[in-house]
Amino acid sequence: MISTAPVSPAPISVSDASRIERLAEVAVHVGLGLQAGQELVMTAPLEAIALARAITAEAYKAGASLVTTLFTDEEAILLRFAYARDESFDVAAQWLQDAVAAAYRSGAARLAITGSNPALLDGQDPQKISRANLAMSKASRAPLELITRHEINWTIVPCATPAWAAKVFPNEPADAAMARLWDAIFASMRLDAPDPVAAWRQHDAELQRRAQFLNGRRYAAIHFRGRGTDLRVGLADDHLWLGGGTLARNGVPCIPNMPTEEVFTTPHKDRVDGMVRATKPLSYQGMPIENIQVRFESGGIVEASASQGETILQKMIQTDEGARRLGEVALVPHSSPIAASGLLFWNTLFDENAASHIALGQAYSTCIRSGASLEPAQLQAKGANDSLIHVDWMIGSAEMDVDGITQEGNLEPLMRLGEWVQAVG
Amino acid sequence: MISTAPVSPAPISVSDASRIERLAEVAVHVGLGLQAGQELVMTAPLEAIALARAITAEAYKAGASLVTTLFTDEEAILLRFAYARDESFDVAAQWLQDAVAAAYRSGAARLAITGSNPALLDGQDPQKISRANLAMSKASRAPLELITRHEINWTIVPCATPAWAAKVFPNEPADAAMARLWDAIFASMRLDAPDPVAAWRQHDAELQRRAQFLNGRRYAAIHFRGRGTDLRVGLADDHLWLGGGTLARNGVPCIPNMPTEEVFTTPHKDRVDGMVRATKPLSYQGMPIENIQVRFESGGIVEASASQGETILQKMIQTDEGARRLGEVALVPHSSPIAASGLLFWNTLFDENAASHIALGQAYSTCIRSGASLEPAQLQAKGANDSLIHVDWMIGSAEMDVDGITQEGNLEPLMRLGEWVQAVG
Repeated sequence: MISTAPVSPAPISVSDASRIERLAEVAVHVGLGLQAGQELVMTAPLEAIALARAITAEAYKAGASLVTTLFTDEEAILLRFAYARDESFDVAAQWLQDAVAAAYRSGAARLAITGSNPALLDGQDPQKISRANLAMSKASRAPLELITRHEINWTIVPCATPAWAAKVFPNEPADAAMARLWDAIFASMRLDAPDPVAAWRQHDAELQRRAQFLNGRRYAAIHFRGRGTDLRVGLADDHLWLGGGTLARNGVPCIPNMPTEEVFTTPHKDRVDGMVRATKPLSYQGMPIENIQVRFESGGIVEASASQGETILQKMIQTDEGARRLGEVALVPHSSPIAASGLLFWNTLFDENAASHIALGQAYSTCIRSGASLEPAQLQAKGANDSLIHVDWMIGSAEMDVDGITQEGNLEPLMRLGEWVQAVG
Repeated sequence: MISTAPVSPAPISVSDASRIERLAEVAVHVGLGLQAGQELVMTAPLEAIALARAITAEAYKAGASLVTTLFTDEEAILLRFAYARDESFDVAAQWLQDAVAAAYRSGAARLAITGSNPALLDGQDPQKISRANLAMSKASRAPLELITRHEINWTIVPCATPAWAAKVFPNEPADAAMARLWDAIFASMRLDAPDPVAAWRQHDAELQRRAQFLNGRRYAAIHFRGRGTDLRVGLADDHLWLGGGTLARNGVPCIPNMPTEEVFTTPHKDRVDGMVRATKPLSYQGMPIENIQVRFESGGIVEASASQGETILQKMIQTDEGARRLGEVALVPHSSPIAASGLLFWNTLFDENAASHIALGQAYSTCIRSGASLEPAQLQAKGANDSLIHVDWMIGSAEMDVDGITQEGNLEPLMRLGEWVQAVG
């Protein structure tokens, strides 16, 4: 699961406005579960204006007290890299992140529209990118904590944008690329189903059953084996597998990521060992990182490399002690509809739902039994990791075998060649 | 002087991009006086994106540590009026206004781009408009105080937008209306001068000389006489006339309104008596108010009417006790370049610089000698008004005579038929 949406910018033109309205309905009612009288804080790239407006209308119809959208202009980010003084890259808008946290604390829901240019910062100075990322991670600590603890109902939904479409469909003309990306988004969001809300309820139930099955097994660890990967991920004490919807601490059920195809839990921050090779590139804050290879010892990364973006990767894992340890492990079958599309989306919301994955950084306290009511020290004692970052990367493939390791040390096959061994429900 | 920019939205197309760049340069260097290392918080209608980007670039070139733009989407405001529940109209984003105040307190400069649709809310329920305005006024108390006390350097600059242009030039096609509005903006901003920065320095010096002349006279009151107007505006004790640039309390010289043609000071909140008729309509938060007529007694409004928007006007003056009293009086000759254009701009930044005007609500403490270092109670003892609002409206015309009333009660002619009697400098 991802909890941060990157930044982005410019108007979409789509023939099928009614599908955007359906997306908005599903986002507000199924993803967010917005309550009457609740405030909504939305973040959106400028290019997502049409979807942002459709969501605004739907939120007011659902009884929102106020919808406030914080738009991001990617051009402004590039202007910073073009003209700002060196010192600028250690500065972030702490006041704005504090404000967003204050809004959450006063009961606001959060909806993030993702659709940024995955290659926005390609070619920029990696040192400056890393410093800006670190400053932003520090500034956004408070809202990220509220989100990862699921204090409020929140969701992330996608919007096609020209730069993103161009990256996914580099050989298509701009219009065709946008249309194809919208088609992929609408399919992944189940908006082509006769009753998308019913389709989501059914899908949610399936993911919940899969999580329930895994919770019943109470594994000590998960073992991944594939090309370049031989990784044992110990699970946190009292870990809880989740999938689909979450009941936020404010009592509102929400589906934090749409689309979602994963079941996920909290690894033990000190019990991860072995080699792992990423099976997809990652776009981290506008910068592609490709062919990541990492070795873990006792939970921490001891070797890391990438064929592109290695500086960004190295700086990222130096953000803090928790940045080199895992905060999430997630299982996704290779037959997931998103994987089946055969597309590389360069967007974590999609790519993480096309492959089993792990995430460096902050753990979700909701993935520990009664975790949301535990103090940070109690969570850490159970193995839950703590960090300013939470960055997912994909390790699953059609060649991946996954075993559960029982408390007694026995291996039980969970996935073979990327597919679940057991049927559930 | 105005201190709040209304809200607004959609992309501008202008042939002369180089004039937008000149506008950005003048805004950042002359209007804002942005300091190297200073953070900038910008507010802008979505339609002002081209100017916002030009200002962002210029600010980074000037050494800004970070530029954060809060965009307003007028469509979202209309969606609220179309779909939100009744209770929504008493809610404002307190958390965001608090954040902006926090940014100012930590040293950020403020630049507002004005260009909203003057008739956005025409036809909407005036009760809802008034409640939303009141909620917003309450929420933005903290940042408004910091601005009216000139704790930081700030400025407001205009950007042509399609809806605004359509209101100013209702008989022109959309493109021609935009081009004419840009022409008027560029002329008023002195961007057609060979050296706009030098032209501003000269203009600023003239306004300063006019303010100095008035300060030398130490009038007890100003008396306005014109068609429907016979108004005596007592001035606050230790009042100070200002014009052109201001030295903000953070030590940075700025020109808070661009364009500016006024000299202004603080009336005494209890010493305003007589009748006054507005000479131009006012667009208040997207709602036109026309043909305002008001009677003052001992500083407070005792009768108020308007041919359009009267409900909004009545609610506005009921915002708090200070909302029915004056916080500013300003003198502008009828030969001001903006008045000479013969245009009604439906935008206070322009219309207040085409005519002498008064403002209901909050006084500028900078218009009291050493006022910025006085406590609120000390300011009020000198007659400075206190309110959640600050709303300018125009009372000057080519028929207006203005006298200064000396401490001894003698009348000295200041303006005849809308023009200064005395030359300065």
